[in-house]
Amino acid sequence: MAATIPETHASLFRDEARAFAFLGTVMDDGSPHVTPVWFDMQDDLLRINTARGRVKDRSMTARPKVSLAIMDPEDPYRYVHIRGTVVDVTEEGARTHIDRLAHKYLGSEHYPWYSGEVRVIYRIRLDTIRVMP
Amino acid sequence: MAATIPETHASLFRDEARAFAFLGTVMDDGSPHVTPVWFDMQDDLLRINTARGRVKDRSMTARPKVSLAIMDPEDPYRYVHIRGTVVDVTEEGARTHIDRLAHKYLGSEHYPWYSGEVRVIYRIRLDTIRVMP
Repeated sequence: MAATIPETHASLFRDEARAFAFLGTVMDDGSPHVTPVWFDMQDDLLRINTARGRVKDRSMTARPKVSLAIMDPEDPYRYVHIRGTVVDVTEEGARTHIDRLAHKYLGSEHYPWYSGEVRVIYRIRLDTIRVMP
Repeated sequence: MAATIPETHASLFRDEARAFAFLGTVMDDGSPHVTPVWFDMQDDLLRINTARGRVKDRSMTARPKVSLAIMDPEDPYRYVHIRGTVVDVTEEGARTHIDRLAHKYLGSEHYPWYSGEVRVIYRIRLDTIRVMP
């Protein structure tokens, strides 16, 4: 069952906040990996978008448990900690989705760094949510 | 052998930057965990400070491989990605060290949230460093 986002921190999940998520995954050798990622919400699922073959693509395909820290861009001491599970992975609509994220974060119509890679959407269920403060 | 911090991103490791690190660890059940942490450098080792019994204390004691993303507070697209190894763990000097970090990040003389917990210093060797952009 998915966790509910507390109203006190709901604004961080909205496009207007332009908050980054720090995504934690586990690599094939069992060691951790952290990268900042763009994200958005679709219904109750958190979506991120990466390219086939990257470390986080390989890690999340093999091991769907992830962790995310979402920081308030205006206050680094205010953040949300999430444990989540990747519930589906699809290339369908992923080019449109990365353009959508570019619009959220950069205000641009298209993702400016596209260079022929295969884009992938990961949809993540929020299993537990802990907020600070 | 430790990696060398590129001169282009060396400023992020200095106290003046007040940059946060997002620390990735692996929990007992094999799933990842990400939290923002304060850090400083001592010689070539990166030091963080936590309290005995917290998730990251238990995880790093059992599994010394960690990952860190250090973001430029003034430009979220500029960051450093590190894979590291915890090379020692000590309670010695850890109260003084958390006060030092409070001074770096808050400008205060003492850590304002101390409430009797046992503080611990983790010293991390930087095995690989990748910078963006």
